[in-house]
Amino acid sequence: LLLAAGMTSREVFMEGAQRPRFMAEPITHRQKLRNAKDMKARMELLIMEIQYEFCQALEAEEKDGKFKVDRWERQEGGGGITCVIQDGEVFEKAGVNISVVHGNLPPGAVAQMNTRGKKLSGTSLPFYALGISSVIHPRNPYVPTIHFNYRYFEVETDTGTQWWFGGGTDLTPYYLNESDAIHFHKSLKDACDKSDKTFYPKFKEWCDKYFHVTHRGECRGIGGIFFDDVDYPDKEGAFEFVKTCAKSVIPSYIPLVQKHKNDGYGYKERQWQLLRRGRYVEFNLVYDRGTKFGLYTPGARYESILMSLPLTAKWEYMHVPEPGTPEFKLTEILKNPKDWLR
Amino acid sequence: LLLAAGMTSREVFMEGAQRPRFMAEPITHRQKLRNAKDMKARMELLIMEIQYEFCQALEAEEKDGKFKVDRWERQEGGGGITCVIQDGEVFEKAGVNISVVHGNLPPGAVAQMNTRGKKLSGTSLPFYALGISSVIHPRNPYVPTIHFNYRYFEVETDTGTQWWFGGGTDLTPYYLNESDAIHFHKSLKDACDKSDKTFYPKFKEWCDKYFHVTHRGECRGIGGIFFDDVDYPDKEGAFEFVKTCAKSVIPSYIPLVQKHKNDGYGYKERQWQLLRRGRYVEFNLVYDRGTKFGLYTPGARYESILMSLPLTAKWEYMHVPEPGTPEFKLTEILKNPKDWLR
Repeated sequence: LLLAAGMTSREVFMEGAQRPRFMAEPITHRQKLRNAKDMKARMELLIMEIQYEFCQALEAEEKDGKFKVDRWERQEGGGGITCVIQDGEVFEKAGVNISVVHGNLPPGAVAQMNTRGKKLSGTSLPFYALGISSVIHPRNPYVPTIHFNYRYFEVETDTGTQWWFGGGTDLTPYYLNESDAIHFHKSLKDACDKSDKTFYPKFKEWCDKYFHVTHRGECRGIGGIFFDDVDYPDKEGAFEFVKTCAKSVIPSYIPLVQKHKNDGYGYKERQWQLLRRGRYVEFNLVYDRGTKFGLYTPGARYESILMSLPLTAKWEYMHVPEPGTPEFKLTEILKNPKDWLR
Repeated sequence: LLLAAGMTSREVFMEGAQRPRFMAEPITHRQKLRNAKDMKARMELLIMEIQYEFCQALEAEEKDGKFKVDRWERQEGGGGITCVIQDGEVFEKAGVNISVVHGNLPPGAVAQMNTRGKKLSGTSLPFYALGISSVIHPRNPYVPTIHFNYRYFEVETDTGTQWWFGGGTDLTPYYLNESDAIHFHKSLKDACDKSDKTFYPKFKEWCDKYFHVTHRGECRGIGGIFFDDVDYPDKEGAFEFVKTCAKSVIPSYIPLVQKHKNDGYGYKERQWQLLRRGRYVEFNLVYDRGTKFGLYTPGARYESILMSLPLTAKWEYMHVPEPGTPEFKLTEILKNPKDWLR
């Protein structure tokens, strides 16, 4: 075990006042992280910081409970820190996970990366991947679900080291509130604009395409931003962009939690939320590349991958909302993604 | 619309007393079915009959409600009949679906079939596929979920017509009852033995392998039989085998419904059932070939494919039953499939 007897992981690492605050001891040794100047170390410090700040912001909204923190190690190399609130009063399920993994790239992953335009050649292809990933399913149907993920990838090929960033933030409301949608997209656009004015329109469209439940002909939610293979303008610039996006999660989302967490709702709204959560499960298990890649990887920590699934979901045969209802209005937007900032 | 105004589909087709009883008009015209002597017609009559008999048997157990019957047509050729009971007193969700589809085989399907040893070559590859598929999710956690599927496939290749049968029946209990498990497997073994004594052991093992949730290292349920590409001993013999298996569904399952549908249970048993239903969803959306093939097929009727999903499911982070409990006993069996008839 990693903890001193009788202490929780948070007590252990928060002893020293001058230390940066994390949810648990980082996967890479603190001393090594502090001294290293490379991107792997800087990104690990960033995701540790984002995890801590986001968990703090969520706990401040939750009357009832703190994050359960699991620090785990991966036999093949690396590990992660999974923070979960389950069955809370405000958050039915909230998961904030970081992982730092390394090893040799499995052939399936190489094939998948090459189909999206990478040229990875080499016999063993050692890689290093780290990122933060989070899904928050609130209790109140008027508070949307948020998902975000920011990650950095390095791989040693025959022709040298390749690196890139990926990530995004997206929102899945159960009822459409236009001013919420505008606030959310505006926060993401402001973050993107600090790096490059072309990013928001490009990554907003990518997001709408990615989170598409093809068999139902609808998007998972009202989008946000999504990107992969970002190695521009340069390593420093790409890191600044990812950092700004990750830092924009709290201001884009927490105001929506505060605004709606005490809204009144009844059986009908809860049932609709559960049906939409079924659709969320469909996307994550049928289409999401991260989930599928994770589940197909031998030795993957499936509890951390499936932490994104809601506590409860429903499937009703042939459920279609009545035209004119708020439920119908949402499905129309999911079928025809909108530009919220025009 | 296919129905006379004011009549339900069952009233229409059940008018003539001498007609065979079906849940709705067959997809192929009744006259054509009666006259045709080929396997496509005989199989369609069989699945129509099985659908009617099984729906009748289930309705006899359900205090509260009849099957809703949807007869649908597929733009690309063929159609199906989907029968569903939802939110009943005995059956939380019961779906019994037949489909009869034809067209040209999509390249993805050809590739998948060839990887399992088929040699399908030709430019257009016209196919004809029909089958029955059913999943029953009872309300009472002491009544197991059953799934069965029996199907016939024909494809025209450059070297002539290829045909085969596939199918199986399997059981997913929430609490293990050994005598139920033995009764169920015994019924399937008896059905298999009528054709060939080597079938049950072979198809029982195939079933355990197929219904495996790899990321969790456990089977979906306690198995049954599963087979594909059956073209032996000959077309007639294969059809007889499939017919005997399909006819064994009622005697293998209905006694378990009768035995347990009034068993007492509480909150704890219901919660465990919902968690296990989450695992059922994981198998169906992540691994099941039929579901994935269906969802990836453009124009597929996703409501009929996803009818297999439970009305309600739960996911709890890191839920592990306590050693020694009945819940734990089930998971041990799911990790180590057993030979019930030894």
